[in-house]
Amino acid sequence: MKHLHPSAEFPVNCWMVAAASPSLHSEPLGVTICGESIVLFRDAAGRVAALEDRCVHRAAPLSLGRVETGRLRCLYHGMIFDSHGTCVEVPGQRSVPRGACVRSYPVVEKSGWIWVWPGNPGQADEALLPDAMATDHPGWITAQSSMDFQAHYSLLVDNLLDFSHLAFVHGKSFKADPKWGTIRPTISSIPRGLRVSRWIVDAPALASARELAGKEADTWQSYDFLAPGVLLMETWYCHPGAAEAAAFGAPTDGVLVRNRAYQAITPMTARSSRYFFVAVLPADEVDRETCEHVLAVSQQAFLEDKAMIEAQQQRIDGSPTWQPLALPADKGIWQFHKILAELGGGLPTHGGTLDGGGNKSPK
Amino acid sequence: MKHLHPSAEFPVNCWMVAAASPSLHSEPLGVTICGESIVLFRDAAGRVAALEDRCVHRAAPLSLGRVETGRLRCLYHGMIFDSHGTCVEVPGQRSVPRGACVRSYPVVEKSGWIWVWPGNPGQADEALLPDAMATDHPGWITAQSSMDFQAHYSLLVDNLLDFSHLAFVHGKSFKADPKWGTIRPTISSIPRGLRVSRWIVDAPALASARELAGKEADTWQSYDFLAPGVLLMETWYCHPGAAEAAAFGAPTDGVLVRNRAYQAITPMTARSSRYFFVAVLPADEVDRETCEHVLAVSQQAFLEDKAMIEAQQQRIDGSPTWQPLALPADKGIWQFHKILAELGGGLPTHGGTLDGGGNKSPK
Amino acid sequence: MKHLHPSAEFPVNCWMVAAASPSLHSEPLGVTICGESIVLFRDAAGRVAALEDRCVHRAAPLSLGRVETGRLRCLYHGMIFDSHGTCVEVPGQRSVPRGACVRSYPVVEKSGWIWVWPGNPGQADEALLPDAMATDHPGWITAQSSMDFQAHYSLLVDNLLDFSHLAFVHGKSFKADPKWGTIRPTISSIPRGLRVSRWIVDAPALASARELAGKEADTWQSYDFLAPGVLLMETWYCHPGAAEAAAFGAPTDGVLVRNRAYQAITPMTARSSRYFFVAVLPADEVDRETCEHVLAVSQQAFLEDKAMIEAQQQRIDGSPTWQPLALPADKGIWQFHKILAELGGGLPTHGGTLDGGGNKSPK
Repeated sequence: MKHLHPSAEFPVNCWMVAAASPSLHSEPLGVTICGESIVLFRDAAGRVAALEDRCVHRAAPLSLGRVETGRLRCLYHGMIFDSHGTCVEVPGQRSVPRGACVRSYPVVEKSGWIWVWPGNPGQADEALLPDAMATDHPGWITAQSSMDFQAHYSLLVDNLLDFSHLAFVHGKSFKADPKWGTIRPTISSIPRGLRVSRWIVDAPALASARELAGKEADTWQSYDFLAPGVLLMETWYCHPGAAEAAAFGAPTDGVLVRNRAYQAITPMTARSSRYFFVAVLPADEVDRETCEHVLAVSQQAFLEDKAMIEAQQQRIDGSPTWQPLALPADKGIWQFHKILAELGGGLPTHGGTLDGGGNKSPK
Repeated sequence: MKHLHPSAEFPVNCWMVAAASPSLHSEPLGVTICGESIVLFRDAAGRVAALEDRCVHRAAPLSLGRVETGRLRCLYHGMIFDSHGTCVEVPGQRSVPRGACVRSYPVVEKSGWIWVWPGNPGQADEALLPDAMATDHPGWITAQSSMDFQAHYSLLVDNLLDFSHLAFVHGKSFKADPKWGTIRPTISSIPRGLRVSRWIVDAPALASARELAGKEADTWQSYDFLAPGVLLMETWYCHPGAAEAAAFGAPTDGVLVRNRAYQAITPMTARSSRYFFVAVLPADEVDRETCEHVLAVSQQAFLEDKAMIEAQQQRIDGSPTWQPLALPADKGIWQFHKILAELGGGLPTHGGTLDGGGNKSPK
Repeated sequence: MKHLHPSAEFPVNCWMVAAASPSLHSEPLGVTICGESIVLFRDAAGRVAALEDRCVHRAAPLSLGRVETGRLRCLYHGMIFDSHGTCVEVPGQRSVPRGACVRSYPVVEKSGWIWVWPGNPGQADEALLPDAMATDHPGWITAQSSMDFQAHYSLLVDNLLDFSHLAFVHGKSFKADPKWGTIRPTISSIPRGLRVSRWIVDAPALASARELAGKEADTWQSYDFLAPGVLLMETWYCHPGAAEAAAFGAPTDGVLVRNRAYQAITPMTARSSRYFFVAVLPADEVDRETCEHVLAVSQQAFLEDKAMIEAQQQRIDGSPTWQPLALPADKGIWQFHKILAELGGGLPTHGGTLDGGGNKSPK
């Protein structure tokens, strides 16, 4: 369980969310991913380019530059770079020095997010991107935002892999029923991730959806959690009895409200992470105002997570020899860190340390 | 005199003030003592418990938790700890894993303060606590506060062991007479500390008591200063002539106003300290408003100390090879650091370095 | 070109601007030069003294002290120092311990600035100070200010040695014509520095002087740049045709406005620098209000430099193995860093690294 003392290493051979699509206009946008400074901009055709955010000349950030007809000019001494990172103009010189270029990154715009692959470009496979999400579909309304955490991204990952925290961290925002604290989900493997599902039977809906779902509901929550930290979640509020009618599998009938949430954690540095989240609701069931309300309650909840996780990070940093205690509720965390380790994330598996350390392995 | 380049080491086998009694209500309270994060809370009987402020599960601060019928629940995943630090409940589990506990600290509530022993619990002897102070006595009115300094606690200790600084640092608050800058106290040994006494003859009282003591007075000031940094002080303003009448010993007659001050310095980290202080005045001589006025002037004075000491700490940190100059006025400091060193505080004595360094030893 | 990864070393055997003369009144003034804390104060005759800003007793900053009839009293325990740094009084003692003194620095007040020599005092030669500048002359009006940069001083030096940045960094303040980005100056050697001159032919004046110089002008700009970073600049706005009439040498005729600017960069720490600047305009041509306007536009421009340079410093610090690309426009930088290296500034020459690193040397 050494992952609670996380290093600066990240699983770089993954697609990571760099920005929400609507946040990239005609100006360049600087972001940090896995410790690397990256500048995003749109070329003349509107396609996103992702370059090293450091001019080859004297290290000025290109994100302080200006887009000129789809190319990016450094605003220190005026060099211009194309979307491949090649310098195409040096003011006052007829020719451009050989090798005057900055690194470019594989980048894809899909489902309302701009995805960058910070690792080996040869491995950047678009097939690894999540399938079409409802964000592009007219049948769904979306509202989105982001929040920075001063903590290693793995602490956010762990937070999302154990939803028992809803009953304790989110008493004021989601007003989660105590059942969230005790019911264990079913966890199964999917490519590069886990599927986590549970029924919360006969309990009030989370506060974000309480007006939609009524007082008592059977709540089906199921999410795919993909490396490095992409959560694609459905929360379906159903008539009481729906869980049993579906034999505790996915609901087939009695659905009152379908609530989707997409979230992505992007490692920025060893101690900072950006958390992107989108509320996605069916256009034929709710209006935009309701969707904004769901987002607002979620934001309040994520501020609660932020306070807890940043404080947890401080305790971990102040405790170099301390080891966590493995509990059965950590099973998803344990499995997911194995996946991250296989991707070369440098995060030791729980398994190894659990066995070696004499702790009881989660069942 | 190497103590001016202080390390992170502290004399941990001491009672240290963790909080003022009235500041601990029904919520847990997180404090830092000698680099350790500690959470205070009251059990069902109102007795104070002091635990390691780091959940055994995943390092969440227990001070972000909630007291439930005298036990402390972690508000990350809901584990509950009793006042001994033993986990008594894990949500969703029937049994608690063996060894699921956090460290507990010896703690005593006495004389208006909560005292924690951060060192070896086997040595925590309540007999080492200061005797009953006037704070519990109906004959005395008290007013108290605290202030954090960004400096090693020994710089605050040294400040309080050389009151010649009153004439220079506190010209605006206490308006101390220049005599404070030149009159040397009598210093004698007491268990784990020093007794420091002086008469300031025929001079205005400190501004905090000037309205009470009149324009000219003989001022008797005597304090016990106990490791690691507890000051129990009496300042008795007397009729002019009282010093001579008492043959420059403790006053026997002619006392106008009795002013008590209790102060305690608690090391937080290598570069932060919490300074607790209480003004204590006789109920039959002054009213509450006067007591608050004395506290307010003292707070102004301690802000002056804070500015000086924090700047001093910065100079010391920027001067790794620099050595201080020993003066006769530093005699109390020199003696007290010997006591701290004997307590294992890791602070080298003045003596050794003074002899070795060729400086003149204070007489 | 390793100078872009600057160390904490500076060329200390130079006169450096510590403060503007008018900023030193009856109170002591603390400054930081090349990592050393220095206190400035005026003796009874008004002459400036520069002492180590750290009391010999217990490291209290003397800049928190008080000037008493031309001597400086430490306001912690009251020791008094004369302008040579010798302690002349210890409160409560008849004699002063031998060796009770703090270091004093060579200091000269000249041309509106207070200059300190932080290096070997034996080498402090007043002949190395810039000759009389117009700041003392009744024929010139001045307005001055200063600004701190969180960057190594060499990044400010490099900024001022390549004015092509005017066309890119200062598009909003100086509104510099694109010609500034492409015209290369003539650079020649002078003692401990470089002379950098250029004509910008038939282009609008910089915004700071546009109302004075009219719409189109030939602009002659020539500055001496002296180690460690003193810029003495003349910008003469002339009638179109003046450049050709002067055969592209210094203008002899057709001058519309003479604009002087004096600037000095003082290294504070490895990552902070103070930038002093004075606008100097002829009293018979402009009024004080115009001079203040020129200063205000310059300040706006220097804030643009500050944003760029501090961001550049962050990129450099995040890129330990990165090497800059040498361009012909960097010729002045390359030459000046040789001068700094000869002064023992610890900054490697461009030349060495350029040859070794296989980069093309600027022509």
